[in-house]
Amino acid sequence: MIVLVINAGSSSLKYQLCDTATAQVLAKGSAARIAESGASFSHVAGERAFTLLDPIPSHRDAMALMIEALLDPEHGALTGVEQVDAVGHRAVHGADVFVEPAHITPEVIDKLEACVPLAPLHNPANILGIREAQRVLPGVPHVAVFDTAFHATIPRHAYLYALPLELSASNRIRKYGYHGTSCRYVVERAAEMLGKPVESLKMIVCHLGNGASITAVDGGRSVETSLGFGTMSGLMMGTRAGDLDPAIIFHLHRELGMSLESIESMLYHESGLLGVSGRSRDMGAILQGVEAGDERCQLALEMFVHRLRSYIGAYIAVLGGADTLVFTAGIGENSETVRRLACANLEALGIRLDEGANAAIHGTGGRISAEDSPMTVLVVPTDEERSIALQTEAVVQGTTMLTIAP
Amino acid sequence: MIVLVINAGSSSLKYQLCDTATAQVLAKGSAARIAESGASFSHVAGERAFTLLDPIPSHRDAMALMIEALLDPEHGALTGVEQVDAVGHRAVHGADVFVEPAHITPEVIDKLEACVPLAPLHNPANILGIREAQRVLPGVPHVAVFDTAFHATIPRHAYLYALPLELSASNRIRKYGYHGTSCRYVVERAAEMLGKPVESLKMIVCHLGNGASITAVDGGRSVETSLGFGTMSGLMMGTRAGDLDPAIIFHLHRELGMSLESIESMLYHESGLLGVSGRSRDMGAILQGVEAGDERCQLALEMFVHRLRSYIGAYIAVLGGADTLVFTAGIGENSETVRRLACANLEALGIRLDEGANAAIHGTGGRISAEDSPMTVLVVPTDEERSIALQTEAVVQGTTMLTIAP
Repeated sequence: MIVLVINAGSSSLKYQLCDTATAQVLAKGSAARIAESGASFSHVAGERAFTLLDPIPSHRDAMALMIEALLDPEHGALTGVEQVDAVGHRAVHGADVFVEPAHITPEVIDKLEACVPLAPLHNPANILGIREAQRVLPGVPHVAVFDTAFHATIPRHAYLYALPLELSASNRIRKYGYHGTSCRYVVERAAEMLGKPVESLKMIVCHLGNGASITAVDGGRSVETSLGFGTMSGLMMGTRAGDLDPAIIFHLHRELGMSLESIESMLYHESGLLGVSGRSRDMGAILQGVEAGDERCQLALEMFVHRLRSYIGAYIAVLGGADTLVFTAGIGENSETVRRLACANLEALGIRLDEGANAAIHGTGGRISAEDSPMTVLVVPTDEERSIALQTEAVVQGTTMLTIAP
Repeated sequence: MIVLVINAGSSSLKYQLCDTATAQVLAKGSAARIAESGASFSHVAGERAFTLLDPIPSHRDAMALMIEALLDPEHGALTGVEQVDAVGHRAVHGADVFVEPAHITPEVIDKLEACVPLAPLHNPANILGIREAQRVLPGVPHVAVFDTAFHATIPRHAYLYALPLELSASNRIRKYGYHGTSCRYVVERAAEMLGKPVESLKMIVCHLGNGASITAVDGGRSVETSLGFGTMSGLMMGTRAGDLDPAIIFHLHRELGMSLESIESMLYHESGLLGVSGRSRDMGAILQGVEAGDERCQLALEMFVHRLRSYIGAYIAVLGGADTLVFTAGIGENSETVRRLACANLEALGIRLDEGANAAIHGTGGRISAEDSPMTVLVVPTDEERSIALQTEAVVQGTTMLTIAP
């Protein structure tokens, strides 16, 4: 099946044309800085590529550029839009409504709009992307694949915060979790690599990208995850603070006179690796800084690893013992240093790395634990677009039920 | 040495007269609702006790009642105030200034006042208590024992939040930790019970009272703890929420229009066991509710235990393996159910309870792990007043250095 995967952000549009049968990416591209100065549009199909630097006034214009590029005789991958069998949309927040991918109907869009207060930064762009894609590809099924859906299996005692229960219930204040599309994909690939049914495995998945999270997976079902109600908690991230004593927010406001808006913006955009290092949000640059003897980069790395190790221990306890530890996403796939430090001196928890195997893996997958390690440690490259394409195919073929909670 | 231990709150005064040589409590008492309606004053010395229900207009009046009671020919324990060798003051927040108990001088009081913005609820009352106690007992050494001091050994990568480093540094935003006086006492008692030097032990201390925290202790030194900058984070508590995605605060303010003051008050006073159960802040009452089939009490218990287990796993990872798990304070000493649920199914982490031994311990100390359990699990009754008396004695005798950081 040919699936066009679309990821619409507030000022961006990314797309990928996938052939699910061959696992081939036929074409991909992105529009950046839509309705801003310095807009750009890039497209790649095999060896052929081009970039435009013209203004892109709206998502509708970006969508038109995408269709034009996909149909272009020289750079395209399609002879007609009817070759697209389905469109899969990356949707960030399905709240407690969408616990599976959903075939998009007007009712689904209404429900997505009702989720906007829970994801004010992401859902409006997702909805806009769906509307504009339906306009240019009206004849094919559109499917929304939710980043929160994989975590719908987290039990109540883990997804609730210890707030007054009435407040949580009436305002849907709970842990939702993110990176679920990636996590689901990685869990299935890990089980394949191990040659074991996913139902038999107790897995901890470290999704370490610019956004980072860690998830405990019991028999293929998410039972705990570090991102919560929003995209701020848990591990230290590129620019996000991760776990933080809430008392600090009240203190910054009362004693330092910071506005709530500036505190929120700081926690999202000026904290994490960037805030501690003062140098970069990117772990690659942090590691270069460490090599060069930069003390703040060293501190940022130590903090990142300390929190990651704490969560690995916590989730082994949550699972009552785990058999598989998985590293994925940018840092997880590429940084042998982070993986080595995260696993060092954890024999008491059943983790022993094969340092040679760990050092040899960079951007590929494989086993990095020692033969005699009680827990197997894997590197598994993630592929969110392929996961969206496969889930979209499943919905269109009717192999996944559309489930909308009441 | 006869030490008078004083714990002054904003509308309360508690005291205990201790003989450190015999470990005897010679007398104790408290004044409640100072400067409020419904004030009361209670005093006990051995078998003799009395209660007054007269108004107590100020801390100075409460202090006078205390001295009068201690000297009372019928109910007292002293024939003259000169029998008091030293006064030990419970001080909540020593910030990064006081990392040991401090002999109180005018300079120390100035520094304590400089810490008020970090502990606006506690330090003003502590300072008032010191001033009034110095007035009635001018001839003896006064010592401040800080609840934060034991945690001064936590390394930088664990005590820092992932905020912009300049902000943390210039505003002293860091994890301080609390319950340190209790924790220090319990760590020493646990080592005695095991007959091992404290330096040889890797310990996790679960201080589970109405306020609750968990601390990782490596060779007698705190290396990580769950309470942080304020007294809000970490474990679920009687009325405090514990760990919470900070994004919720911004959401409650923006989408529900809650004021920051009401959110803060809710997180301190209406959350935790009380908020989830809708019934009680007290674990005893929650457990009765569970027995009676109350679903919200069951949920509150499950959430409390889930978070506690997560931290036990996390701190085993932080310590790179631990040998001793200690339960203390009200819930830790008295609830076999919480201890049993917290340790259930953690064989992978080296924890195996002796269920009979666990069920037999209620308010006393002892070992509750199975003979073949890799980790030893202990119940150790805490005694904060005795810890303050012993630390005060050590300062007066010069066996502990007064350390004030620059």
